[in-house]
Amino acid sequence: MTPGRVAVVGGGIIGLAIAAELLERGADVTVYDPAPEGTDGAWHVAAGMLAPGGESAFEYPHLTRLLEASSELWPSYAASLGDVGHDDAGTLSVALTADDVADAAREWNHQKLARLTGSRLRELEPAISPRVRAGAFAAAEHQVDPRKVVAALRARLAGRLVRRRVTNLSAVDSDVLVIAAGCATAALTGLPIRPVKGQVLRLRGEPGLLKHVIDGAADGRHVYLVPRADGEIVVGATQEERADDVATAGGVHDLLRAALDLVPGLAEHELIEVAVGQRPGTPDNGPLLGFLGPDRRTIVAAGHFRNGILLTPITARLIADLVLTGAADPLLDAFAPGRFG
Amino acid sequence: MTPGRVAVVGGGIIGLAIAAELLERGADVTVYDPAPEGTDGAWHVAAGMLAPGGESAFEYPHLTRLLEASSELWPSYAASLGDVGHDDAGTLSVALTADDVADAAREWNHQKLARLTGSRLRELEPAISPRVRAGAFAAAEHQVDPRKVVAALRARLAGRLVRRRVTNLSAVDSDVLVIAAGCATAALTGLPIRPVKGQVLRLRGEPGLLKHVIDGAADGRHVYLVPRADGEIVVGATQEERADDVATAGGVHDLLRAALDLVPGLAEHELIEVAVGQRPGTPDNGPLLGFLGPDRRTIVAAGHFRNGILLTPITARLIADLVLTGAADPLLDAFAPGRFG
Repeated sequence: MTPGRVAVVGGGIIGLAIAAELLERGADVTVYDPAPEGTDGAWHVAAGMLAPGGESAFEYPHLTRLLEASSELWPSYAASLGDVGHDDAGTLSVALTADDVADAAREWNHQKLARLTGSRLRELEPAISPRVRAGAFAAAEHQVDPRKVVAALRARLAGRLVRRRVTNLSAVDSDVLVIAAGCATAALTGLPIRPVKGQVLRLRGEPGLLKHVIDGAADGRHVYLVPRADGEIVVGATQEERADDVATAGGVHDLLRAALDLVPGLAEHELIEVAVGQRPGTPDNGPLLGFLGPDRRTIVAAGHFRNGILLTPITARLIADLVLTGAADPLLDAFAPGRFG
Repeated sequence: MTPGRVAVVGGGIIGLAIAAELLERGADVTVYDPAPEGTDGAWHVAAGMLAPGGESAFEYPHLTRLLEASSELWPSYAASLGDVGHDDAGTLSVALTADDVADAAREWNHQKLARLTGSRLRELEPAISPRVRAGAFAAAEHQVDPRKVVAALRARLAGRLVRRRVTNLSAVDSDVLVIAAGCATAALTGLPIRPVKGQVLRLRGEPGLLKHVIDGAADGRHVYLVPRADGEIVVGATQEERADDVATAGGVHDLLRAALDLVPGLAEHELIEVAVGQRPGTPDNGPLLGFLGPDRRTIVAAGHFRNGILLTPITARLIADLVLTGAADPLLDAFAPGRFG
């Protein structure tokens, strides 16, 4: 089957990955984005933690299966893109106080992770505060640098990125249309996607302070620290049910306080960036993946919420399958865009 | 006496104020600065608190007299410059914990300020945290916006600001030379001026959250909050014996934490700027004001440390006197540039 011309609306990480997959499989694909070289988009703020266990809702096994399937694709997917900062040193989950330990234990038990004492944690990661009580090691969690992934995908798609803000789907001249516009998908389709604000910091210091991703809680404040090879450390993220793009005193404070409580040696790191983004949330926080309506001309791939980076390879593969064959993988069954009625 | 041509080396707030005073008194003055429209300089970071009591060393009565003399000049000086954000609502000194109260009481007693209870503080300034134990009201402390002051002085000196980095004083063609180059004065003169780093934040929200300058201590962290009429609030400042211009995770955290401990309602304010500056410190942290050497051709006005904004009017007046008459006011006796031998 040949799909003819495919238009992808949205040049974020999901739209780019779908388009690159289609291009590689021989499709005639064009990506429309208001700023195809810009930095708007959840990918630009995202830390790039690939955590198939930690981020999933316990009660949502379909999402866990999708996350795990995508996680398995990441090592070869990253390798195919070149150096995109893929690192599989794993994640140390840490908890500062007894209350933090009690909260984290639920997650550790769910993931069947062995608990580590504070002293064992500091053997693995000497920069962790002596005040940290306990933790666990999640070997399956890895990371990529989303900014490098997007740069690599943009390079693949050279000549196929068109600067255009699509506001009317029927005005797009194509045989198949893929809507991968993140939060903007709501206005284009009427689907229930809401922005969930996140504030994220970037610090910089001598490389080597941290060897692992740190995912921790400190006095009830949740924070993750994602160290890059060049000494950058991403500190994220607030989660706020609002749509503005304002960095706030409270948000930045909470991130820095939790980060410094867990890793005091970060105090002398330079604060190089304060960024604000919007995650595309859905009513069940699972993505919307599949045909928009009965005409099978329009496909949606949006609403990835906190899991956009992790779900990029599986989304690209399964949506490309859908475009090229019309057949939906069973993994997509739970994520029909129309499931909220 | 006519001084002929006067060159001022340094276009920060001190150099500009001296030059503007000289111009007004009929002198032929030129200001040299590497970036006469730039934002390098302690004035750009400074909050503009005019606190003649609070900032002075108890043991240094000469400095206190100079600060008080300049403080008295500020209202009319500000009026002569137009709208430079002069505000005389006064400063509330506040202390969070019992330990903070004990520390602050020394300052309050020194300044003979009546102690206020927490509830009285919140009557005066409802945004202050219910956790704040005690405080005092310093009616004599006022504020200006240093960025507006510099803009007004630059406008006065239109045509007399020359973009030039002076590295050799003998290469400046003038009859009298005034060195007002802040930290750069050290390299030009050999005088003992060292950079003392300060990190300062700027927040923005609805105007009216705070009516007074807040100068407080929270769990041993000192912070001041300077509210502008437009809703900007300056949050300062770290004081670090180092010369770099790096905003650090620890510095920003400490300022935000103290600010939020004292005024929790700041949490939703936007963080609009993180700035780093260097105060020009001296061995006794008093300024260097007077002739550089016996030839009486070169005058120094530098090393104002934390008091540069407050000391601007008195410095401009007394240095202009020195340039135009050769006579030094007795207030300058304690601040001879050569006093460290």
